[in-house]
Amino acid sequence: MKNKEKIKPFKKEKIFLSHSYFKYPLPAMLLKELSTELKDINLYPSGGGYSQLCQVLAEHVGVNRENILPTNGSDEVIEIVTRAYQGEVLIPIPTFFQYEVSADRSGLPKVLVNCLHNREYNINYSAKQLKKTSLIWICNPNNPTGTGIPREKIIDILQRTKGMVVVDECNYEYLEETMVDLIDKYDNLVISRSFSKNFGLAGLRLGFAISNPQNIRRLAAFGQYFRVNRMAEKAAEKVLKYLDYYQKAWEKIKKTRDKFVRQINELGFFAYDSKANFVLVEFRDKEECKKIWKHLKERGVYALPGWENEFSGLGDQFIRFTIGEDWEMDRVVEALSDYVKRCRRGDLNPHRHTPTTP
Amino acid sequence: MKNKEKIKPFKKEKIFLSHSYFKYPLPAMLLKELSTELKDINLYPSGGGYSQLCQVLAEHVGVNRENILPTNGSDEVIEIVTRAYQGEVLIPIPTFFQYEVSADRSGLPKVLVNCLHNREYNINYSAKQLKKTSLIWICNPNNPTGTGIPREKIIDILQRTKGMVVVDECNYEYLEETMVDLIDKYDNLVISRSFSKNFGLAGLRLGFAISNPQNIRRLAAFGQYFRVNRMAEKAAEKVLKYLDYYQKAWEKIKKTRDKFVRQINELGFFAYDSKANFVLVEFRDKEECKKIWKHLKERGVYALPGWENEFSGLGDQFIRFTIGEDWEMDRVVEALSDYVKRCRRGDLNPHRHTPTTP
Repeated sequence: MKNKEKIKPFKKEKIFLSHSYFKYPLPAMLLKELSTELKDINLYPSGGGYSQLCQVLAEHVGVNRENILPTNGSDEVIEIVTRAYQGEVLIPIPTFFQYEVSADRSGLPKVLVNCLHNREYNINYSAKQLKKTSLIWICNPNNPTGTGIPREKIIDILQRTKGMVVVDECNYEYLEETMVDLIDKYDNLVISRSFSKNFGLAGLRLGFAISNPQNIRRLAAFGQYFRVNRMAEKAAEKVLKYLDYYQKAWEKIKKTRDKFVRQINELGFFAYDSKANFVLVEFRDKEECKKIWKHLKERGVYALPGWENEFSGLGDQFIRFTIGEDWEMDRVVEALSDYVKRCRRGDLNPHRHTPTTP
Repeated sequence: MKNKEKIKPFKKEKIFLSHSYFKYPLPAMLLKELSTELKDINLYPSGGGYSQLCQVLAEHVGVNRENILPTNGSDEVIEIVTRAYQGEVLIPIPTFFQYEVSADRSGLPKVLVNCLHNREYNINYSAKQLKKTSLIWICNPNNPTGTGIPREKIIDILQRTKGMVVVDECNYEYLEETMVDLIDKYDNLVISRSFSKNFGLAGLRLGFAISNPQNIRRLAAFGQYFRVNRMAEKAAEKVLKYLDYYQKAWEKIKKTRDKFVRQINELGFFAYDSKANFVLVEFRDKEECKKIWKHLKERGVYALPGWENEFSGLGDQFIRFTIGEDWEMDRVVEALSDYVKRCRRGDLNPHRHTPTTP
């Protein structure tokens, strides 16, 4: 019964597509179960090894308890990994900015490698870069481009470096491809996952690292004893009972996403194919992008432009849209369509809209 | 109405006095208010500056918003401060072990200064130590001795060092003495507070640092953007509406504590005077202490002995008891009284109980 709850969308006047959180309500029964845990929040979380939580996460992922390190959101995986494997950090831009933030915090040298050429995101580290580095970031699917990174490419990198390769799979639930089966084969592989984006627990902060037991022990030494709060700890187990609900939501979001990509491209802008819950749109230049950003904002649509510093190495001609419900994405398409029409009429000159797709 | 809720004790078979959490239930109305926040846990916490949370905490403490840094429990204040002011760390033992853990994590040199002489805990750093150090810890009241540190002593230290002096006031609610009024006068003063121990939010993890805006900005650079979860963020404001309830509970705990200290001393053991929600008891030696620890455990009483590594520099002849409800502390006293009687009869030989108070 509880697994068959209907997915009812939130109703909001403004459309917030900046943060890539789960935009559907959590199952009502789940919320009820969670509320019964509140009476025990005077107690400390399990702390330290978080063995019960590790067990739950390990079963979910299909590994052993010793392969798991729960963290205060997957941002903390980034922070801990950075502190544990200090040295030169390879960052494939444009990508999520926290890799850079954590490297800066530890005062580490960064190499920002541009992987976006001719509107294709391809990770292409040189042999020299891979030899020198201590830590290599791969966001899969990449944020903000939404690109899935081919498995062979990641294996190739694992084989060509002694640095630690961290695959950020915080959007695994949309890509459905993982490197988890290789944690015993490659000593230098750490995987990061999250409950924020796709399970609707962004507010509770729950992420985890997956690797061999030796790496996990090393990482654990850099985390605080009580790093995961008690509600997040309890929520993991409960949330996973509602996988059916989430899977339905993810399917729905994928459909909405693919339709959105088509519609944006039909309008003459360039939307990147996405394997995540967001879509990156490239406009002609910064000026056009700023104009469109303002146009959208005036219509109550908030999305994340390149200049907001949420990404490393993303130009000002980009806006990332989190995929919301159909009606929300329809509003974005309408607004953009309206922009195109106005441009044709000359309302929004001097910079007329020029279709950028071939 | 909601502020007048009766304090009803939990009923449990075993008596857990190891962790120093708030052992009374949270107000029912508060739990209800918190449960309404669960539906929004798909949203991220405010993040970054946490300005609304800072405002709430600042008003509570009587400072400005810019003086506050909210953290994932006060353990994170310890971690962040240690990372921000790297160098030699002065730790006044016996004391809370996290100061040492964080120093070790950053690979910093530690100076453990023994402050317990003739059953009196006095912080006595030498001029040489104060000159050389980057970071000085003062736990007030000290954990585990429960000793309140005189204000003049802390001011004296502030004046004699250029190192950062961190006063851990996570048990301020029992001591009711603070250094907060001096954050503008002394550039090298940071204060740490917690909602875990005395507001019953140990499970949610909420601590904060108080200092001048310049120090707070420096500390902030070492914390993650989403370090405090959304439930903790919301709970702070709600909890503070029930101050009356908490104050009544704290008064009750203080009475229970002082009675417990008297009773322990009457039995011939040595209980330290405490300004916190725990009491440290010193037994003749490690052997007697281990025997008593086992004796208590067999009677369902769990407390924290020196050998459990929760404290820096605490001998094996000590046990720290968190103050629970009256009936719990009565059970401890009964068990110890029973131990004394058996010793007199010779049941627990070869080490007969020898009263250790003058």
